[in-house]
Amino acid sequence: MSKFVLKSTVLLVAAGIGLGASSVWSAESLQDVLKRRGLSQQDVLAAAKTYVPTGKRDEFVAFSSGGQSGQVIVYGIPSMRILKYLAVFTPEPWQGYGYDESSKDVLKQGWIDGKEITWGDTHHPAISETNGQYDGQYLFINDKANPRLAVIDLRDFETKQIVVNPIYKSEHGGAFVTTNTEYVFEAAQYPAPLENRKFFPLEEMNEKYRGGMTYWKFDRKEGRINTKESFSVELPPYWQDLSDAGKGPSEGWSFTNSFCSERYVGGIEKGRPPYEAGCSAKDTDYLHVINWKKAAELVKQGKAKKVNGHDVLMIETAVKEGILYLIPEPKSPHGVDVTPDGKFIIVSGKLDTHTSVYSFEKIQAAIKAGKFESKDPYGIPVISLKDAVERQVQLGLGPLHTQYDSKPCIAYTSLYVDSQVAKWNYCEGKVLDKLSVHYNIGHLMSMEGDSAAPKGRYLVALNKLAIDRFVPVGPLHPQNHQLIDISNDKMQLLYDMPLPLGEPHYAVAIEATKLKPGVRYKVGTDSRTDKPHPGAVRAGEEVTTKTGNKIEVKGTLIRSHITPETIEAEVGDEVTIHLTNLERAQDETHGFTVSTYNVHASAEPGKTVTVKFKADKEGVYPYYCTEFCSALHLEMMGYLLVKPKGWKPTKTAASAKAAYTEDDYKATVKKVADTQAVIDSVVGYITSVNFKDFPDVVAMVEDATDQLGKIPEAKKKADEAAAKKDWDQANLWSEQIWQYQVKAADLGLRAKTYLEQNGAKPVK
Amino acid sequence: MSKFVLKSTVLLVAAGIGLGASSVWSAESLQDVLKRRGLSQQDVLAAAKTYVPTGKRDEFVAFSSGGQSGQVIVYGIPSMRILKYLAVFTPEPWQGYGYDESSKDVLKQGWIDGKEITWGDTHHPAISETNGQYDGQYLFINDKANPRLAVIDLRDFETKQIVVNPIYKSEHGGAFVTTNTEYVFEAAQYPAPLENRKFFPLEEMNEKYRGGMTYWKFDRKEGRINTKESFSVELPPYWQDLSDAGKGPSEGWSFTNSFCSERYVGGIEKGRPPYEAGCSAKDTDYLHVINWKKAAELVKQGKAKKVNGHDVLMIETAVKEGILYLIPEPKSPHGVDVTPDGKFIIVSGKLDTHTSVYSFEKIQAAIKAGKFESKDPYGIPVISLKDAVERQVQLGLGPLHTQYDSKPCIAYTSLYVDSQVAKWNYCEGKVLDKLSVHYNIGHLMSMEGDSAAPKGRYLVALNKLAIDRFVPVGPLHPQNHQLIDISNDKMQLLYDMPLPLGEPHYAVAIEATKLKPGVRYKVGTDSRTDKPHPGAVRAGEEVTTKTGNKIEVKGTLIRSHITPETIEAEVGDEVTIHLTNLERAQDETHGFTVSTYNVHASAEPGKTVTVKFKADKEGVYPYYCTEFCSALHLEMMGYLLVKPKGWKPTKTAASAKAAYTEDDYKATVKKVADTQAVIDSVVGYITSVNFKDFPDVVAMVEDATDQLGKIPEAKKKADEAAAKKDWDQANLWSEQIWQYQVKAADLGLRAKTYLEQNGAKPVK
Repeated sequence: MSKFVLKSTVLLVAAGIGLGASSVWSAESLQDVLKRRGLSQQDVLAAAKTYVPTGKRDEFVAFSSGGQSGQVIVYGIPSMRILKYLAVFTPEPWQGYGYDESSKDVLKQGWIDGKEITWGDTHHPAISETNGQYDGQYLFINDKANPRLAVIDLRDFETKQIVVNPIYKSEHGGAFVTTNTEYVFEAAQYPAPLENRKFFPLEEMNEKYRGGMTYWKFDRKEGRINTKESFSVELPPYWQDLSDAGKGPSEGWSFTNSFCSERYVGGIEKGRPPYEAGCSAKDTDYLHVINWKKAAELVKQGKAKKVNGHDVLMIETAVKEGILYLIPEPKSPHGVDVTPDGKFIIVSGKLDTHTSVYSFEKIQAAIKAGKFESKDPYGIPVISLKDAVERQVQLGLGPLHTQYDSKPCIAYTSLYVDSQVAKWNYCEGKVLDKLSVHYNIGHLMSMEGDSAAPKGRYLVALNKLAIDRFVPVGPLHPQNHQLIDISNDKMQLLYDMPLPLGEPHYAVAIEATKLKPGVRYKVGTDSRTDKPHPGAVRAGEEVTTKTGNKIEVKGTLIRSHITPETIEAEVGDEVTIHLTNLERAQDETHGFTVSTYNVHASAEPGKTVTVKFKADKEGVYPYYCTEFCSALHLEMMGYLLVKPKGWKPTKTAASAKAAYTEDDYKATVKKVADTQAVIDSVVGYITSVNFKDFPDVVAMVEDATDQLGKIPEAKKKADEAAAKKDWDQANLWSEQIWQYQVKAADLGLRAKTYLEQNGAKPVK
Repeated sequence: MSKFVLKSTVLLVAAGIGLGASSVWSAESLQDVLKRRGLSQQDVLAAAKTYVPTGKRDEFVAFSSGGQSGQVIVYGIPSMRILKYLAVFTPEPWQGYGYDESSKDVLKQGWIDGKEITWGDTHHPAISETNGQYDGQYLFINDKANPRLAVIDLRDFETKQIVVNPIYKSEHGGAFVTTNTEYVFEAAQYPAPLENRKFFPLEEMNEKYRGGMTYWKFDRKEGRINTKESFSVELPPYWQDLSDAGKGPSEGWSFTNSFCSERYVGGIEKGRPPYEAGCSAKDTDYLHVINWKKAAELVKQGKAKKVNGHDVLMIETAVKEGILYLIPEPKSPHGVDVTPDGKFIIVSGKLDTHTSVYSFEKIQAAIKAGKFESKDPYGIPVISLKDAVERQVQLGLGPLHTQYDSKPCIAYTSLYVDSQVAKWNYCEGKVLDKLSVHYNIGHLMSMEGDSAAPKGRYLVALNKLAIDRFVPVGPLHPQNHQLIDISNDKMQLLYDMPLPLGEPHYAVAIEATKLKPGVRYKVGTDSRTDKPHPGAVRAGEEVTTKTGNKIEVKGTLIRSHITPETIEAEVGDEVTIHLTNLERAQDETHGFTVSTYNVHASAEPGKTVTVKFKADKEGVYPYYCTEFCSALHLEMMGYLLVKPKGWKPTKTAASAKAAYTEDDYKATVKKVADTQAVIDSVVGYITSVNFKDFPDVVAMVEDATDQLGKIPEAKKKADEAAAKKDWDQANLWSEQIWQYQVKAADLGLRAKTYLEQNGAKPVK
């Protein structure tokens, strides 16, 4: 009997769950399950390495570009469960993004040439860094199609800012950050004239089209990019690609590769060979090496030129000041990756089998010695490959992107054509292992794998094709991210994760414990500005005003009613509705929409949201809370009444009477008393254990107390009505008391379950 | 030693993978993994029951409403991996939905009162049925916020049609289908005047506001709803809720519950108790029982009245003709579920602990006998609860929705307030098991659980709150769908699945093998109309025409170039671009966008797409393929050149010369020869095994052959140029030959890997 089996047997005994204890639900044994489902022993090990039981947490959180969805995908590792799609460049109705006023303002920052842009092609996310390590505070991501960059605050996972690149028409290689997030940078991709709205024919590409590198200044205190202190460096019309920031010894420098440095112009429709032929004809392209620290100083010294109102350091200046160099790199590379210690830069040419390890020390030596093999057509000094490269290693077909392990000198490189991941040692130039993936891997991601301190353990292959991996869902397939265990000498494929929306291009993963988002806002917050919302009100202060044809509602949301429950308008009125969610309990979100008026807002606890529309159609339009927020959520509604201009009631508009009797009232009072007994017993349990040690329970108890706190006022109204024998009102207010009780009981029961399942202990 | 342990030991031996065989990747034993990750034996069993290894398939596919995302979520069971978000009511850029012309037309069908609606609140998906069983052909889903219904074709998982409900302002309870999908039906929710754009004050709710039930006629051959043959039945202003269709003995009938039959009007801002108090004051609401078959006949006989141009059978007629009845049901129910045999209808009142089993036979007996306890205020006969109910069972707090098992008489009911699922026997009225879920379950879903033939095995709890279950991602949490094993007497919780986008309301699951979607379109198909696209062209027929200020491009997409690579326009021109994807290989999708012009299309193999925009800004705008479709995908681009009006070249616009030499050409010719050797070896392997038994491989081989088939033409051009000593063209066309080779090799290697991993066998 092998050691493996022995160990497992010991475990099964040690786990102490024999058939006796578990027979009821485990009528099937593990053996039966494996047999029935056709699983191998390897599969079970992979399952055990990725399964996250209820209530347990993932170890890492990945932020993946959402590709053509224009969003960011957040998922847990090792479970590979998608936790959230963050709305960034595209309107997203669940989050109210583009459907409420504050988020519309964010999207509007991303309009180009005064025109609305409702989509993006997100490519490269980057997490903010402190001393070269991920700090979990901010996320940046670019839009390749419409060159823009977004800032997401990881306190609430919301997009706070979009900036439009002032000089590009296309931007693939961004975002990347410097080691303390002083700058977030992005390179141009397809060359074009830098001046906005300026045409030059393709025949003048060499003279009039340009690339570039933009350094956005990030103000960490404000959590926003400061566009005025941002600048770019003009680059030749080589198609700039990905970048990376130097760190440690290479701190202050940035590296950007390129392809089609042939500057080829296609035109297959005119009988010319297409771009794909002409752009990969030469054996090498150029790695751009830029001293961004010095560039920033030069800009401060006024050495930049204004292009479209933005500071651009022109090539001529960059060359003269010695901040810009080129080095040949194997052709059509995609991925330039600085090693964790900052000493080397690894580049792979997609159409070359070699991966090149450049030495920063050698590059600096060449620069110091003024040793250049030539100048490019734009006068930029070119360092020779042999003077800059430490070694070249043959990894396989279509090498693309490299990420690092926590173990020194260990790197992983994706091989697109081979559909493999190569594990190799870049200090020794040795290939250590290869693993097939499914299929055609683009980028890959190890844990904090492009930071100064990679965490090892897992690697994710971002495969571009899934083909046969999943149940078919039509001609448009999901992508396939495959999780790989890299803890051991040999890589082990653990999990296939379909990506259901968008084609993620690149992803970054951070230790889950570094993320510390909030669960509620300070009451009355505008989450997009992080400031108090001018439309916020507290309970009891709700108000509707009309000035001219402008109606402004300042209302509130709480389980399970919207205040106000009626909004009256005349055709043509402009209606603005601000709503503050008064809840405190975690996850007690309310949504808001008005039938056919195409608005939606998501109001998490404490948030104030605004929707705005023109009431241009006569009629009766229900509005409601769009979240299943309590047992009575369907009753959380109201009516927008749009009257014809000058409408007057034709008869005395007395509210319909419900005609409740004294007996109805008494029955309700009894129901309330019975329910109170249930609540008392739950409260009795909760207070009998150490519930204060569980923050989630404390929040629920606070909220339940809040609900119960509303009872005296309703009771007063019921009592007053009963005294007047107004059984309608007496009964209805008593019903409302019961509603408060139901919600408190709901929270209490949830808290009780939580405590029972999480080992709460009795207290005195 | 327990039996369980013994069995597992046997398995581990039987699996035959000792430490020797697997030591390299399994440096950790299963025991080590369990210890490190804190997993119990139960967890391992759950992991083994849900894990789907690479290349294996899920057993069931769930179609879940996407809630406020306006979309549909498709996921696999038991892995709970999301396979796709289907764009339905909301623009979705990845799929080009709302960004290409054909899909814009679909969305436009959903405009209301001539106004664009870009969001929806999807609630209840329904799969088409044949003889009461899911047939996997179509999916229907409603929009609650803006009463609409969408038709999705499961051949390609695309939304084909949106119909606007002509008489409602709100619609929660739909879609449901009749047993042969003759009709898809939806009920109104919040009452409003049926006439469009008509205001009546809330005080006249009883007289002027109405509910209703709409039966959409489905034309299965066309795959579209026939709006002209559709009709509605007018109902009182009780807030209609969910429905279900009769089957077997109850075939031809439909059942719809309601809440707030109090017809209460809130107004908390005016000091009135809110809706939540008044809408749940009475102990019962009404179940609506409708004979839809007879209703359809009455409409054909001309007994309907036209409201907004739509046939509505008024209450008076429905009562007179004996097709409409009411039965009291426990208060505020949500979910009315006909048993698989069609004999019973189960309804739970959220605010009552009872679940009621109605007997269709008893209902019919009462109707036949004319035995009614009363009439409602609208003259509808009310059958007494005791005359209609078989039994009532106390299940727990907040019972909501019921689904069925494959075992007779076994049902599962969600308990919202208790956060539990109850398993019970509805024939005997016995509770069999309860399981806690996390937290506050709304609907639940068993496999084909509302059809005439439920499949058992799994149950999914659609919980409304996740709270502490996942790594926190800010104040807005994912939802939590929990997978439950129902194969045994006791339910076992298997898996927590976060829902990352939208709050799903309801879901349906079908056996995966019943779905048979295509992987490619017939070349030149418009996928939204299912017809040949007028803008389609074949390879070599690409053409650009200009008529007045209208530019029309008929182009093609194939790895890795777009034809044409240049589109020239003058400022103000209207540009229409049709693109046909010429690929055949599965999953070889191309996307298309133009920088800053806010268009995007997803072109799967064979599909023709159209984007349209006004070239209203001078400048140079790159366009590109937005999918990582091959190693050269970044080169799959072109330029839209928008010239100032009347622009003329200022100098002879000679294309830049690349200045390749004879040596360059010879080097490329050698590279081509070397690559051919690689291809030959791969072809040698593929043809040495039974590759024709693998359809996926056959498709790849076809596509590779296609690529290689383009070589002779390029070779001819290269040879002609070489003869003329035009080394530029000779070299570039040779490079293009190499590109064809690289793509063929890529496909070949993928095919080879597939064959090796899937047990291909040698052939002679």
